[in-house]
Amino acid sequence: MEKAVLNVEGMSCQHCVKAVTGAVSGLDGISAVTVDLGGGTVSFEYDGALVTIDAVKAAIEDQGYDIV
Amino acid sequence: MEKAVLNVEGMSCQHCVKAVTGAVSGLDGISAVTVDLGGGTVSFEYDGALVTIDAVKAAIEDQGYDIV
Repeated sequence: MEKAVLNVEGMSCQHCVKAVTGAVSGLDGISAVTVDLGGGTVSFEYDGALVTIDAVKAAIEDQGYDIV
Repeated sequence: MEKAVLNVEGMSCQHCVKAVTGAVSGLDGISAVTVDLGGGTVSFEYDGALVTIDAVKAAIEDQGYDIV
């Protein structure tokens, strides 16, 4: 597993945390998803054989947030 | 039906709008619920024989927002 941190714009409340955490956690090969609402970051571990960072970004964008 | 507007603090995104709208709309005697995210208000019509403003406030507070 590798670690990654994405900067995500537009997360403003606990509903956003739940939406993003759920979307990222639902992907294969992802674990340890943590959203820092104040810092605007999403941290996670991923298995590069199962999932790409681009797929994670797409899952977050599908929830209505921008990757910055 | 009478009209009412409450000032609600802490609504920050479309998830919040959905949570508050759903909670208020779910009460008996309530219709025409509109949340103004920018203005921080919840507008609705209510039948005073079926529901009290206090019950509406409680439903909103139960979602984690403050009435101001």
